Amino acid sequence: MLPSVNASHRKVLSPINTPSRLLLGPGPSNAHPTVLEALSRTPIGHLDPLYVQLMGEVQELLRYAWQTDNRLTIPMSGTGSAAMEATLANTIEPGDTVLVAIKGYFGLRLADMASRYRAKVVTIEKPWGEAFSLAELEHALATHKPAILAMVHAETSSGVCQPMEGIGDLCRAHDCLLLLDTVTSLGGVPLFLDEWKVDLAYSCSQKGLSCPPGLGPFTMGPRAEAKMTARSSKVPNWYLDVTLLNQYWGSDRVYHHTAPVNMNFGMREALRLLAEEGLEAAWARHRSNAERLWAGLERLGLQLHVPEALRLPTLTTVRIPEGVDGKAFSLHLLNKHGIEMGGGLGELAGKVWRIGLMGYNSQPANVDRLLNLLETELPAFAPAGLSAVVAA
Amino acid sequence: MLPSVNASHRKVLSPINTPSRLLLGPGPSNAHPTVLEALSRTPIGHLDPLYVQLMGEVQELLRYAWQTDNRLTIPMSGTGSAAMEATLANTIEPGDTVLVAIKGYFGLRLADMASRYRAKVVTIEKPWGEAFSLAELEHALATHKPAILAMVHAETSSGVCQPMEGIGDLCRAHDCLLLLDTVTSLGGVPLFLDEWKVDLAYSCSQKGLSCPPGLGPFTMGPRAEAKMTARSSKVPNWYLDVTLLNQYWGSDRVYHHTAPVNMNFGMREALRLLAEEGLEAAWARHRSNAERLWAGLERLGLQLHVPEALRLPTLTTVRIPEGVDGKAFSLHLLNKHGIEMGGGLGELAGKVWRIGLMGYNSQPANVDRLLNLLETELPAFAPAGLSAVVAA
Repeated sequence: MLPSVNASHRKVLSPINTPSRLLLGPGPSNAHPTVLEALSRTPIGHLDPLYVQLMGEVQELLRYAWQTDNRLTIPMSGTGSAAMEATLANTIEPGDTVLVAIKGYFGLRLADMASRYRAKVVTIEKPWGEAFSLAELEHALATHKPAILAMVHAETSSGVCQPMEGIGDLCRAHDCLLLLDTVTSLGGVPLFLDEWKVDLAYSCSQKGLSCPPGLGPFTMGPRAEAKMTARSSKVPNWYLDVTLLNQYWGSDRVYHHTAPVNMNFGMREALRLLAEEGLEAAWARHRSNAERLWAGLERLGLQLHVPEALRLPTLTTVRIPEGVDGKAFSLHLLNKHGIEMGGGLGELAGKVWRIGLMGYNSQPANVDRLLNLLETELPAFAPAGLSAVVAA
Repeated sequence: MLPSVNASHRKVLSPINTPSRLLLGPGPSNAHPTVLEALSRTPIGHLDPLYVQLMGEVQELLRYAWQTDNRLTIPMSGTGSAAMEATLANTIEPGDTVLVAIKGYFGLRLADMASRYRAKVVTIEKPWGEAFSLAELEHALATHKPAILAMVHAETSSGVCQPMEGIGDLCRAHDCLLLLDTVTSLGGVPLFLDEWKVDLAYSCSQKGLSCPPGLGPFTMGPRAEAKMTARSSKVPNWYLDVTLLNQYWGSDRVYHHTAPVNMNFGMREALRLLAEEGLEAAWARHRSNAERLWAGLERLGLQLHVPEALRLPTLTTVRIPEGVDGKAFSLHLLNKHGIEMGGGLGELAGKVWRIGLMGYNSQPANVDRLLNLLETELPAFAPAGLSAVVAA
């Protein structure tokens, strides 16, 4: 005898009717229209020969985007944060020292995650808006002798791009793996994983790749693979266990979990578009639109938070003028104009707006539209004295 | 000075061109057309007030589908396997005894996962095609005194539906949490989580819900929440940590990870369609189409692997007739007719086909199309003597 059905949670809803937004915050960013079309194709089986072929294409194009030959290059079936956790979960053994170089929110997250895998976590920190020097990193490596140095290439919370020259060599000299967050750089900012001797990296499907959020590109080089293979115990995370995932993504095609096939349709299209444009062209486009934005913001009298040499082309932090309610202005942009701009996190909460120009969104027309709104509508949110400055 | 770009992985591809398949295997199953439309909408921000509203709708409709009032009811941002891991990761503390009742592949997986969270895993087993009796479960609970009993409601590998009456009461009497896999039952088979006193459950977005794979519905009742809250250490999995996720899905809306917004658009539409049809109607539809399939298969002289009383309406295991190359016939159906049927896993590898009639795919026309192909095309794959039987 079955009980009767309780209808108290049976909400009656109209079909979905979300508006079309221009997402110029830290993410998600807009997806390319043909990526959205790919997403809505009829699913095929995750062991279908055609899907197996598509998996190979996605892997190969990810290698191109990252400039790596790494065999173990796959999209994790979760968002960028899942791929981030995968880099740590597969390589940390309890008691390993993990050095995290923190210069923003995502460095803090790396430290939290590493601690959950029973690493001995040590950190070095810089203010949010600065980058690490080689000397600072070398000193920390020599002091702490970590098994892994984890750091963020493109810090989404501060808008800083960490210069990478020489860091890989330092890590090899100190017999340490180099783990790099490339969430806000992949597809938009020059990245040369192999050349830079990066052993582990992760990213997301949105931002520079112009696919919606939901997949987490992951890559692991031979030195990291050797550390994983030498583990004395199973990876303490089943879903993200690369030793199992590799049997599915590798030549064996052993069932692990049911792949998010539609998201991978979108990913394949997003990576195809990037390869069609070419990395050099995509990077140059991001750079040129960012420079157009920076010049425009300065023309309006607004202050950029990061010195130009360290500025990310994909994500710009601009200081909220004194006296302006930054959140009120963001809400105004969203509700009146359908444009999303981000606020600050952590140290920078309430102090900056974060403007993303990533992937499909990195277009001069988007820059001009935003600058125009800042010029014409920000003064109304500023104290009287400031209006003149902003509207000057 | 940047290195030059290496184009060796720059694969030149045509736009995606996957065929339209009818997916009658164990999953993924076809998605409803309006779900696919929802998937391809322009993303909105994961902290956008409209997205926050959508999150609430998804949670409420999941409660309806599962027949639960659980506050902590959310879709995990990964596939069903991620939600499976979340039920274990959040509640197991090292040294806890976890009793896994194994009657198929997914029971084995639960045991593997639980061991990674340092549980003391004990198991009881039944052949793949049978279910557990209350007496067997009671004996095991009394013997092992576990903190958690983990079991599968709808075992996708065998096609067995575990009768649930009385199990929840037994678990309460033995002060043990009841954890239930509802991957192949949610939306297609009667499920009454609260009535059955289930403390933890998970499912997937495809199958009975008619959304593509990629999200993992998760729910946790008050007894499981109390165990989680009393933990002496952080959840050893950051991405699936419900104490953090609840700050995002709860009233605080604290940023955790960038939600897979498009997948949640699809999920909202899938759950809306289920609520519109009503659970009783959806369950009756699955039952009636399954019975149509069973009768047809028996008419063709094929043998069903599971006794009728334990048979799942969503997934039918049918024995491959002796002498027939089951894999060759499946490939023939896929390549000639665009229909996917599943093979056996583990104990049943090579012995059965698995036929799924789930969600949008549970339609009389699909049943008739498959039966017709079995009748007309299977004889060519059978030894001479058998052809007569199958085509009789």
